[in-house]
Amino acid sequence: MVSGVKIAIVGAGSVGFTRKLIADIVSVPELQDVEFALTDVSARNLELVRRIIERVIEVNKLAAKVTATTDRRRAFEGARYVISCVRVGGLEAYADDIRIPLEYGVDQCVGDTICAGGLLYGQRNVPVILDFCRDIREVAATDALFLNYANPMAINTWAALDYGKVRTLGLCHGVQHGAEQIADALGAERHSDLDYICAGINHQTWFVDLRLKGRRIGREELLAAFERHPVFSKQEKVRIDVLRRFGVYSTESNGHLSEYLPWYRKRPDEIARWIDMSDWIHGETGGYLRHVTETRNWFETDYPKFLEEAERPLDPTKRSSEHASHILEALETGRVYRGHFNVKNAGIIANLPQDAIVEAPGFVDRFGVNMVANIVLPQACAATCDVSINVQRMATRAAVEGDVELLKLAVLHDPLVGAVCSPEEVWQMVDEMLVAQAAWLPQYAHEIPAARQRLSEGKVKTRDWAGAARREVRSVETLRAQAAARRENTEV
Amino acid sequence: MVSGVKIAIVGAGSVGFTRKLIADIVSVPELQDVEFALTDVSARNLELVRRIIERVIEVNKLAAKVTATTDRRRAFEGARYVISCVRVGGLEAYADDIRIPLEYGVDQCVGDTICAGGLLYGQRNVPVILDFCRDIREVAATDALFLNYANPMAINTWAALDYGKVRTLGLCHGVQHGAEQIADALGAERHSDLDYICAGINHQTWFVDLRLKGRRIGREELLAAFERHPVFSKQEKVRIDVLRRFGVYSTESNGHLSEYLPWYRKRPDEIARWIDMSDWIHGETGGYLRHVTETRNWFETDYPKFLEEAERPLDPTKRSSEHASHILEALETGRVYRGHFNVKNAGIIANLPQDAIVEAPGFVDRFGVNMVANIVLPQACAATCDVSINVQRMATRAAVEGDVELLKLAVLHDPLVGAVCSPEEVWQMVDEMLVAQAAWLPQYAHEIPAARQRLSEGKVKTRDWAGAARREVRSVETLRAQAAARRENTEV
Amino acid sequence: MVSGVKIAIVGAGSVGFTRKLIADIVSVPELQDVEFALTDVSARNLELVRRIIERVIEVNKLAAKVTATTDRRRAFEGARYVISCVRVGGLEAYADDIRIPLEYGVDQCVGDTICAGGLLYGQRNVPVILDFCRDIREVAATDALFLNYANPMAINTWAALDYGKVRTLGLCHGVQHGAEQIADALGAERHSDLDYICAGINHQTWFVDLRLKGRRIGREELLAAFERHPVFSKQEKVRIDVLRRFGVYSTESNGHLSEYLPWYRKRPDEIARWIDMSDWIHGETGGYLRHVTETRNWFETDYPKFLEEAERPLDPTKRSSEHASHILEALETGRVYRGHFNVKNAGIIANLPQDAIVEAPGFVDRFGVNMVANIVLPQACAATCDVSINVQRMATRAAVEGDVELLKLAVLHDPLVGAVCSPEEVWQMVDEMLVAQAAWLPQYAHEIPAARQRLSEGKVKTRDWAGAARREVRSVETLRAQAAARRENTEV
Amino acid sequence: MVSGVKIAIVGAGSVGFTRKLIADIVSVPELQDVEFALTDVSARNLELVRRIIERVIEVNKLAAKVTATTDRRRAFEGARYVISCVRVGGLEAYADDIRIPLEYGVDQCVGDTICAGGLLYGQRNVPVILDFCRDIREVAATDALFLNYANPMAINTWAALDYGKVRTLGLCHGVQHGAEQIADALGAERHSDLDYICAGINHQTWFVDLRLKGRRIGREELLAAFERHPVFSKQEKVRIDVLRRFGVYSTESNGHLSEYLPWYRKRPDEIARWIDMSDWIHGETGGYLRHVTETRNWFETDYPKFLEEAERPLDPTKRSSEHASHILEALETGRVYRGHFNVKNAGIIANLPQDAIVEAPGFVDRFGVNMVANIVLPQACAATCDVSINVQRMATRAAVEGDVELLKLAVLHDPLVGAVCSPEEVWQMVDEMLVAQAAWLPQYAHEIPAARQRLSEGKVKTRDWAGAARREVRSVETLRAQAAARRENTEV
Repeated sequence: MVSGVKIAIVGAGSVGFTRKLIADIVSVPELQDVEFALTDVSARNLELVRRIIERVIEVNKLAAKVTATTDRRRAFEGARYVISCVRVGGLEAYADDIRIPLEYGVDQCVGDTICAGGLLYGQRNVPVILDFCRDIREVAATDALFLNYANPMAINTWAALDYGKVRTLGLCHGVQHGAEQIADALGAERHSDLDYICAGINHQTWFVDLRLKGRRIGREELLAAFERHPVFSKQEKVRIDVLRRFGVYSTESNGHLSEYLPWYRKRPDEIARWIDMSDWIHGETGGYLRHVTETRNWFETDYPKFLEEAERPLDPTKRSSEHASHILEALETGRVYRGHFNVKNAGIIANLPQDAIVEAPGFVDRFGVNMVANIVLPQACAATCDVSINVQRMATRAAVEGDVELLKLAVLHDPLVGAVCSPEEVWQMVDEMLVAQAAWLPQYAHEIPAARQRLSEGKVKTRDWAGAARREVRSVETLRAQAAARRENTEV
Repeated sequence: MVSGVKIAIVGAGSVGFTRKLIADIVSVPELQDVEFALTDVSARNLELVRRIIERVIEVNKLAAKVTATTDRRRAFEGARYVISCVRVGGLEAYADDIRIPLEYGVDQCVGDTICAGGLLYGQRNVPVILDFCRDIREVAATDALFLNYANPMAINTWAALDYGKVRTLGLCHGVQHGAEQIADALGAERHSDLDYICAGINHQTWFVDLRLKGRRIGREELLAAFERHPVFSKQEKVRIDVLRRFGVYSTESNGHLSEYLPWYRKRPDEIARWIDMSDWIHGETGGYLRHVTETRNWFETDYPKFLEEAERPLDPTKRSSEHASHILEALETGRVYRGHFNVKNAGIIANLPQDAIVEAPGFVDRFGVNMVANIVLPQACAATCDVSINVQRMATRAAVEGDVELLKLAVLHDPLVGAVCSPEEVWQMVDEMLVAQAAWLPQYAHEIPAARQRLSEGKVKTRDWAGAARREVRSVETLRAQAAARRENTEV
Repeated sequence: MVSGVKIAIVGAGSVGFTRKLIADIVSVPELQDVEFALTDVSARNLELVRRIIERVIEVNKLAAKVTATTDRRRAFEGARYVISCVRVGGLEAYADDIRIPLEYGVDQCVGDTICAGGLLYGQRNVPVILDFCRDIREVAATDALFLNYANPMAINTWAALDYGKVRTLGLCHGVQHGAEQIADALGAERHSDLDYICAGINHQTWFVDLRLKGRRIGREELLAAFERHPVFSKQEKVRIDVLRRFGVYSTESNGHLSEYLPWYRKRPDEIARWIDMSDWIHGETGGYLRHVTETRNWFETDYPKFLEEAERPLDPTKRSSEHASHILEALETGRVYRGHFNVKNAGIIANLPQDAIVEAPGFVDRFGVNMVANIVLPQACAATCDVSINVQRMATRAAVEGDVELLKLAVLHDPLVGAVCSPEEVWQMVDEMLVAQAAWLPQYAHEIPAARQRLSEGKVKTRDWAGAARREVRSVETLRAQAAARRENTEV
Repeated sequence: MVSGVKIAIVGAGSVGFTRKLIADIVSVPELQDVEFALTDVSARNLELVRRIIERVIEVNKLAAKVTATTDRRRAFEGARYVISCVRVGGLEAYADDIRIPLEYGVDQCVGDTICAGGLLYGQRNVPVILDFCRDIREVAATDALFLNYANPMAINTWAALDYGKVRTLGLCHGVQHGAEQIADALGAERHSDLDYICAGINHQTWFVDLRLKGRRIGREELLAAFERHPVFSKQEKVRIDVLRRFGVYSTESNGHLSEYLPWYRKRPDEIARWIDMSDWIHGETGGYLRHVTETRNWFETDYPKFLEEAERPLDPTKRSSEHASHILEALETGRVYRGHFNVKNAGIIANLPQDAIVEAPGFVDRFGVNMVANIVLPQACAATCDVSINVQRMATRAAVEGDVELLKLAVLHDPLVGAVCSPEEVWQMVDEMLVAQAAWLPQYAHEIPAARQRLSEGKVKTRDWAGAARREVRSVETLRAQAAARRENTEV
């Protein structure tokens, strides 16, 4: 039993994720008596979550402790691990990340990575990330590890490492989900029959080597598998097209991938060709915004159900594939865990810039995260990643320095924005976003009046529309009715 | 007097350039008894040019010798310098570089660097470049220097260095011309009052430091100068807009620059806003093609005038700013010459890939071309260059290996093509270009039947138009009449 | 069961090592039906070994096959793995590696890595390595893996990778043995309680992180442990002194380490202070030469015992810690194996030259050997390794090109040679070694007459002695008597 | 005329150098009205120098101003250039740099670069350099340039750049003097007939390309020239031997070079073979210490002569080859100056570490110092430089952090110390030097008591001698008599 480990979770108010993280961690026998220190800006959510975790601990008779406080520094005090899953600006700012770019023709599906929305999201995040890092440096345990789950992954991790000066690891489950889908497409008996190397940057990572029970899977076989798959052939049209042309499959879901590339969402009348509206979000305009809005509403009314769920004993075999618990296990026990992580590209991907934040395979053991050296990406994958990396580098520095011009240049160089907008449109769009989100952009405070002035004189014509493929946010009642219907269908 | 220097010129049939090169070189006192070995695929042009050079030598009583042969290896034998100004495929292939992309909405002005036309031009050039290099390695003097003037500069130089294994320097006059324009805009008394550092890649080089009589010129001053200039404010709208946003001026002329960026030529109805049709080529569709077509026609009829001109004694003070003669002078005499050259990026520009072909300042002396180490580009300039470099890297390798898929990926990643086309359009467009230019693409011979087959089944709709801003090729008569009118105007 | 795997072993005539390799490999359930193709220059040894392996296969009822041939190309044909444990020049040349440097005051213990002996050994090896590589490229399976056990490790691996153009992994057991010693010194219950990261170059690898049951072991604790250990405190004086000053422990055994450093063997009268003569080779002059001479004699007489041993069934729990079988298992089954390997430093050790052959941790799985990126060595360790790397780089190129001057410069820069000799002594010593070993140095054939001429005029005075700490080679009878005595002692 | 340029000179009390610097600078027409701000720790020397400079200005009717103050910050205020020629610890500490290592067998000639003396000298300098840098950052002009003439060059420059965070250029005249000697050896009519590229690190720079009137000079020709030269063949034996073996000539004078290498000074009885005692310092023990001691004494008595000299008008044709005035001229006027400078190796020498301070060619113009990119050193030269660079890297960090162990490791890895001493000798020697020089080593203050304690228990036997080739310091009377005698000889 490893003792004395304190794990702080910031943004802990998001109940589902916090509960999963903690359940995963206490599934490790050696980690059952850790201390979880939850913190969030919302005292109310925090209390709701704390109560659930408290119940989980009691029901499962764990030695773990849980505390909750809105005082972040107290939560971080002495912590060996700090896990962040914050969303700065909440749904209010997020809605603007989707709405304003649409006025300028930029039709995003998720908008949390690059593209106009993701880049502004980064501007909101970085000041907060730097605050976290200062607190970690000052009050957390020596050499504490910062595990960042928050998007935009590359920008947040870049800021934490280069400017926050904290040991940081960026974590995402995109690689695992992509691999499961490939395994399904290939008809694997078990997901674990598929071995793979992924490399690139977060949300643009590429399956550069695939083995099914040890047999190498080439482009033609994979393409055929996806094309004949009844569901994926409909829902993953962009990914399949990219596979066809690049030769490798991307980790990122269809709609998300489509917004990092200049080719699939620039003509409104063609977007529908590449997405699927039947289910979940495979490319719909503002699809993820709709999803998280529905989820939040659902949570508000369905809290009792979470509490009820907490009464059921944990099943260690249900431990999720989220990296955090596996990393902690590896670091604390020495059992090797292989995953794909977001880190500074120091010797890892030979044909991406060495200062970039890359996502690549690593083996975690008690010595830390041992990233694999000297991976070479196919040239087209590297070319596509390079565009985003340049955008991220500019956006990160702009966010730290509050440099409006550099931010505009970052947005201008974004692949989808660049394919859709003219420079003057970009300049006005960014001004509009800065003004709308000023409350979360302290580093730009001195620039807001001038931006407001420029806006009032703005000559660029904007467009009033909801995007090429917009769905309504469903009410809780509708969701409940649909869930009930699904259950009935399944049971029959 | 340096003796025993043999200079081979390949593509010597282009009379104007060859005559200028040679006149420049013999203006150097130490270089008056060199041997010029002219070679070209056209025996007729070669003979015309040889006669002119012969006259120049006689009239000026030089010790130089000139020979002409269509046998390239004979011309290269023992040469210490090989200068290339070839245009593979001539005007016939060039016309297709402009015409076919237009069918797919890609409206190019010059099309000789990247973009669909430039990339195919590179495919035609590389096999020829590799032939030159083999001959240089085999029959030229030990460590002969290959001076390449031919476009696409980066692709040609990349191929010559990495695959041709020959000492190569890529030469272009874009930097000098840009600097002269800046000096004029700033109202400098003499062009030489302006000192500057340029860095980037050929045709996307940036004036990162400007001094007028030693005083640093910042963005605002330069912008104001261009905006109030009666001519440049009309003819250089894209460059001025880029200066406004990036903070630095680009070497490349307005129309040319506009086709390397995703922002200015993607909407046909807006192209007119950014270009000027009054004079020369400041952005017109296929403008450079029109120009060289007119020039060629003019040459056909005006050859006697060239001969006449050769009768006049050379004036050394009229030596041009083309690099070649200055480089030869520096290498042979040790007098330092500072210029901007295209070379492998080995330690030169810190934030561009080290394998790229960059254009940057160097000091030539008898030890060779001493490139300046460790230049850092502004991030947005680096981002813009990076996109092209990735395209060039793929296009160069594709050209060497005859790899159709890689060529298509190169074209797909081109900034303007990517902003205009969908992937399937790119695939069909490249097939169409390969089939049309098969005669000059030996490395793709095995791929042409399949490309033809795919084309016959092509489903992508193409567009039948002349481009957003097309002018007619003027007849020789018209040109003569216009020239006469201009002379009259000037005289009055 | 993985089928169709052919494993060629070159230098298979060394019975002990070949038998161990094969026993290890067939201990892996999936690898029991592989084909072993043994090859050696000595038909006689080969036949002796083949018979033993044949018996092992029969006795253990394995599906494996064994063949033996002096025709190397036949052995390599279709092989997926080629394992080399050759010793070029045998004991005859080796004796000169020790004897000649002694004349010039260079008193080596092992002399197979760098130092005068090791560098000449490299000159003998490289031509053979390049022959192996040519055969592998031409007749082995596509992408066959060359596993090199032969010393000098770095030079051999460097030549195979850069000049032989073959996928190569250099394997040594020094790291494992060092770790076992540390575990013993610390009083660990089991060797596996110790986790460690080693990094550096072969035979100069440093334990940069040590954990005993997860607890970090610092310099002071380790130093105290070694200083109070009854045996190690006597046998490992150099290593302990280096640990005291550098802060980290070296993988290399006492005598071996002492000959890579300028500080411990340069004064004959002080060598005795740093070594131990009681047992095995802890620094004696030519100690390893004595050891292998005795072993060879022993083998000659004791062959029947080997055959007898082969009759006993294999015990899979006795599988050795030699890397080869574990690597094959990982590559063929995907089970992760962590070890320390010799590879090109591409992104691995940040503060050693990127072209060096480094020894560092890697995780082998079915994708290959995943080396850990971005390790930073303590500065003094890096400084010490750098000296050797420079020597190895020069020696490797000299060996490939047959460049006598570069070889002499390599020897001159060797740390121990440089501390002992003057330049003119080095020049004469190398000439003497080249002449003595000319039979194994085809690449220097054209240089031998001149070297012989220079030698005959040599003015440097040499010394006639056996070294500071020389022991006699024991006869087989003595060895047998001593072994018997030891058995008796143990039984009592 | 460039106006408003203030030049601070720190260590200005060394009259000869300061006078030369200033005379050189005012020889540039555009620089005649600059302000010189002299500062030094010795008010007395400062006043003496100020008076001389004042006279120079008056006599030559210059517009320049001179001020003198012991308040360094006042001197630095607003300065565009800060030139340092300090010698921290003066002759007192310097004497210990020579004396103490001798006790341990380390027989230095100059001892101001690496080796035991140079490394301790660096420890004394770095705290002062960092003070200078802080003052420059805080009170000098924005982007002021620090021109460092003080030794140890690499350590001082490294500290100023990496830790002082100031734009720094390290200047030495070794390259020029070496080139003049080569020109003389080759019998050149004028020194300027020789063109050359030097590259390496300060005091270990190598003439990698030599051209006499454009003709390449190879090793054999150069070697023959030196061997037959009546003076150099006697005075430069080490350099000639190195040329013979390495193939290139070193910038460094015979005695100085001999102390950076492990081969020429390690055996006391052989030192005499490699040096010349007839004149100046070509290798004598503590030769440079003797020289500066004599010079200081001379200055004390001969000050009136300096004043007298100041009365003579300046002759601009006598401008010296010291870099400073030429650099200032180039930066302020744009006239290109080519020299060899000490800078961070960013892209300059491809096969030396990128963080090292290298000495290599650069072209200065108004944009700054344009270092030449991508020079490749011969492998043996790189190997030799690498050893020193590792020592310098450790010594610089040790000096900044006051890390005794790292300092000892630096000294241990020094090539000559490593060839002469054992580790325990090094440990005791460094302790002895730290204790002796504690007054100038504030960063080690906390370590001195422990060092003193260890010293008192020191078991290493030391040697009481004056070195292998020691000469007495001559009295002023002797010097005067010898000078008189020389004059007489010359006049006859």
